[in-house]
Amino acid sequence: MTFDTSPARYKHWKLTFDGPIATLSMDVREDAGLSPDYKLKLNSYDLGVDIELADAIQRIRFEHPELRTVIVTSLKERIFCAGANIMMLRGSSHAAKVNFCKFTNETRLAIEDASANSGLKFLAALNGICAGGGYELALACDEIVLVDDGNSAVSLPEAPLLGVLPGTGGLTRVVDKRRVRRDLADYFSTLVEGVKGKRAVEWKLVDRVYPTSQFRDAVRKRADALAAASDRQATGPGITLNPLNPTVTESGLTYTAVTMTFDHAKRTAELTVLAPSGPQPSTAEEILKAGDQFWPLRAFRELDDALLRLRVNEPEIGTVLIRTEGDREAVLAIDRTLVEHQSHWLVHEMVLFMKRTLKRMDLTARTFFALIEPGSAFAGSLFELALAADRSYMFHDDNEENVVVLSPLNAGPLPMSNGLTRLQTRFLDDATKVSEVLAHAGPFNAAEAEEAGLVTFAPDEIDWDDEIRVAVEARAAFSPDAMTGLEANLRFAGPETLETKIFGRLTAWQNWIFQRPNAVGERGALKAYGEQGRPEFDWKRT
Amino acid sequence: MTFDTSPARYKHWKLTFDGPIATLSMDVREDAGLSPDYKLKLNSYDLGVDIELADAIQRIRFEHPELRTVIVTSLKERIFCAGANIMMLRGSSHAAKVNFCKFTNETRLAIEDASANSGLKFLAALNGICAGGGYELALACDEIVLVDDGNSAVSLPEAPLLGVLPGTGGLTRVVDKRRVRRDLADYFSTLVEGVKGKRAVEWKLVDRVYPTSQFRDAVRKRADALAAASDRQATGPGITLNPLNPTVTESGLTYTAVTMTFDHAKRTAELTVLAPSGPQPSTAEEILKAGDQFWPLRAFRELDDALLRLRVNEPEIGTVLIRTEGDREAVLAIDRTLVEHQSHWLVHEMVLFMKRTLKRMDLTARTFFALIEPGSAFAGSLFELALAADRSYMFHDDNEENVVVLSPLNAGPLPMSNGLTRLQTRFLDDATKVSEVLAHAGPFNAAEAEEAGLVTFAPDEIDWDDEIRVAVEARAAFSPDAMTGLEANLRFAGPETLETKIFGRLTAWQNWIFQRPNAVGERGALKAYGEQGRPEFDWKRT
Repeated sequence: MTFDTSPARYKHWKLTFDGPIATLSMDVREDAGLSPDYKLKLNSYDLGVDIELADAIQRIRFEHPELRTVIVTSLKERIFCAGANIMMLRGSSHAAKVNFCKFTNETRLAIEDASANSGLKFLAALNGICAGGGYELALACDEIVLVDDGNSAVSLPEAPLLGVLPGTGGLTRVVDKRRVRRDLADYFSTLVEGVKGKRAVEWKLVDRVYPTSQFRDAVRKRADALAAASDRQATGPGITLNPLNPTVTESGLTYTAVTMTFDHAKRTAELTVLAPSGPQPSTAEEILKAGDQFWPLRAFRELDDALLRLRVNEPEIGTVLIRTEGDREAVLAIDRTLVEHQSHWLVHEMVLFMKRTLKRMDLTARTFFALIEPGSAFAGSLFELALAADRSYMFHDDNEENVVVLSPLNAGPLPMSNGLTRLQTRFLDDATKVSEVLAHAGPFNAAEAEEAGLVTFAPDEIDWDDEIRVAVEARAAFSPDAMTGLEANLRFAGPETLETKIFGRLTAWQNWIFQRPNAVGERGALKAYGEQGRPEFDWKRT
Repeated sequence: MTFDTSPARYKHWKLTFDGPIATLSMDVREDAGLSPDYKLKLNSYDLGVDIELADAIQRIRFEHPELRTVIVTSLKERIFCAGANIMMLRGSSHAAKVNFCKFTNETRLAIEDASANSGLKFLAALNGICAGGGYELALACDEIVLVDDGNSAVSLPEAPLLGVLPGTGGLTRVVDKRRVRRDLADYFSTLVEGVKGKRAVEWKLVDRVYPTSQFRDAVRKRADALAAASDRQATGPGITLNPLNPTVTESGLTYTAVTMTFDHAKRTAELTVLAPSGPQPSTAEEILKAGDQFWPLRAFRELDDALLRLRVNEPEIGTVLIRTEGDREAVLAIDRTLVEHQSHWLVHEMVLFMKRTLKRMDLTARTFFALIEPGSAFAGSLFELALAADRSYMFHDDNEENVVVLSPLNAGPLPMSNGLTRLQTRFLDDATKVSEVLAHAGPFNAAEAEEAGLVTFAPDEIDWDDEIRVAVEARAAFSPDAMTGLEANLRFAGPETLETKIFGRLTAWQNWIFQRPNAVGERGALKAYGEQGRPEFDWKRT
């Protein structure tokens, strides 16, 4: 399974441009699902469809600075989108369901990130039936317009029809983003046929409805209005996101700045990120010219891809040991360049991409231990990897050459999904510690880093090998599920946001339901759907 | 299963008093578990032990206004508490596990409520080993002191030992209440033997440690200090919480102000709350004299008991139809009395009790539909039942006699666990709507209530019967699990708090794990514990 694609290879989406407005049209090919076991009828989708969507949104940000509005619509008659393909879901393993939901959630959050931070406004133009995951995609947009043809409705039929939740943010966004009244949301979410026309507007499920005859023009007008209101700073030519083309073998992935090797017997991986070397761009012009080869974008794109492949292709790798290598001064120089040019649209997008990649790591259900050893480059943006890890071990060398360093990128530009920086989350007990470590001049050696609370443990040469070995072996021996639950709770201390609610409350309940016989048992609702006979439920409420 | 108990009947706790200080000592009787299938060794507990704890905390608030500090300790040598009994857990059904965790969570939150709102300070005096649920109980206290005897440690061994989570608030409180650094929390929560002595203090897992020789005196001094710092207003004699003694039959429960009848074939219950009738106390003296017979305390204690019995004894009742009956003016008069005397300790406690009962309803995994019909008394505090319901149906009568009314009790004193009132949660889209409905003079008839958004639907006589019948039948036919997940997401729009994180993020993940073969399968960790051989895991990370 790979996540590489590009518009020329899209099977399910058409991406067209007209001045500041892009139109992203869903036109799913029934016979082009990831598996031949199901047909993607009625613009229903599987992970392959969503990988193209995620790619399109990414490219719009980097390759098309001229854009202000993205219209999300469908090329199918009277159908916007029927949601996630049910036959795909019922045929999927538990892990596949969970990974599918996680990725689609991240894609929808990327839409909201582009709106909130890049001034790209998304208009869901619902030209027909919009059900389940289709409506959840619309909910991620800034504005939803629905054709008023007496038939087209928005709906979340997952619970009544399939016995599962609208788990791609649906329940959360209905009440927390669109702030639909909870009792109306309750009724709506149990109504297979959904809500259409004026009532959909009154209940705030959509923003506007238009008769069929006016729909096309109205969509254009709303898109223009959104473009006019956009504060997107980007101008000039974009850059191209070229394929990453890692070398893939049984034992690992090799990119230019990232390698990930697997020890399947031990169920561990080693992830290494290389600091930049050689001369680096330092002006906006040079950065534009370097494009996707500029280290921060290149390294974090590779990291992002490695994390995605790990999730989907390496289910039994439970523990990831993170290292960095190279010149930490070069990382700090890059961080300075990023801060200096942070108002330039491309640099801004690069930092936002780094942020999203680190969030992807926070949400990856694998243990991460950072190993900070001599020769490492845990500086600034790369130190975020240590902060994102569940624990960090720093080699306490006698000569004090092994160090970590902070940079302004640790102070705000790379927040977690809880809205706090990783330093703020780490020092939730005392905000002054955050300012203290940020005010510290120069690097921290192992003793200083441990004292300041920047690393978990700092064993010396006598203890290092044994301590790491024991920690990794112990971790790898625990129940994988218990570790997933543990990490999902400990990583997100502090405030909850729409985003963390989706991954905390909603996802955790959905995963519970995905285990329940009432959904996935032989006579469960998901299994029974489309077959003769009704589902049979264990009626006990839990 | 009943929830009635009193100190004279306690099997597992001793409650003693010394001036402003109570000591609540755990001394679990091994052979007095709810089931003969397990022995409650080492101060481990089952639901029966926790029912006594909940009762003790309740009585301390109402019966002992002289108290300022509660020392929570153990009478066993070198053992504070070994946590929830593992043999009990492994023998429990999924629903029983979930209900057990929910009740124990509510009990610990009641401790924190007593501290935050009644000035009762809780001191966990850990005189020995404090593991798992034992430490989670300590975490709910204001201060934790641990004996430093070289052996006594605090620990959360659930994940490494049993493959489940410290789900009684443990993971949440460690990082969100005590703000232990997340990496230290990660390490601690995978360490079977736990952390003791100075390190436990440094990591903020406990507040203080004392050598065995000083422990007793130090605990007393800390208890005195907490008592001196308490702002508890209560004085004078308390009131007695007498047994509720409902009439219990196959078909229902009958109390004085509450009835709940079951239709097992339809999987529905009808819950009716009667408004007060006759003369009511209106001065503090009269309220003290009426004691637990004063309507708000009596009615809400009965409601609380009915909800608890519903959860545990009626697993297949999925939908509860809530009605009120009687004189709504009498309810409003009571509300006025409660507000007028809100600074009186007993009235204050009564309102806090109403709040907790309504939270219990929010957290009850059953659908609630409020039916507002002529003769109903959905006024003020009783209107909170309609606001807590997933939907409300109000009969639209021609003569406009069917009304609902708000009171100051809807404006603040009865917040949900998300920290907002039910009106604020309902009108999350527009805070001015909250002030508007609160400013409305007098009752709302059905048209006004629907227009104001106070009720979901207001069918007239022609539609009423059919609409209710269809709604109830449809609801009762859906997957019980999907409804539980749906409600758990829609009921808690808005901010998340420590409390909602425990019931959202932590509980949902725990329930997922409680379904996973790695925990509950034949070779899962929970099943394998204490038997020959190690658990066998499916190593896939999800």
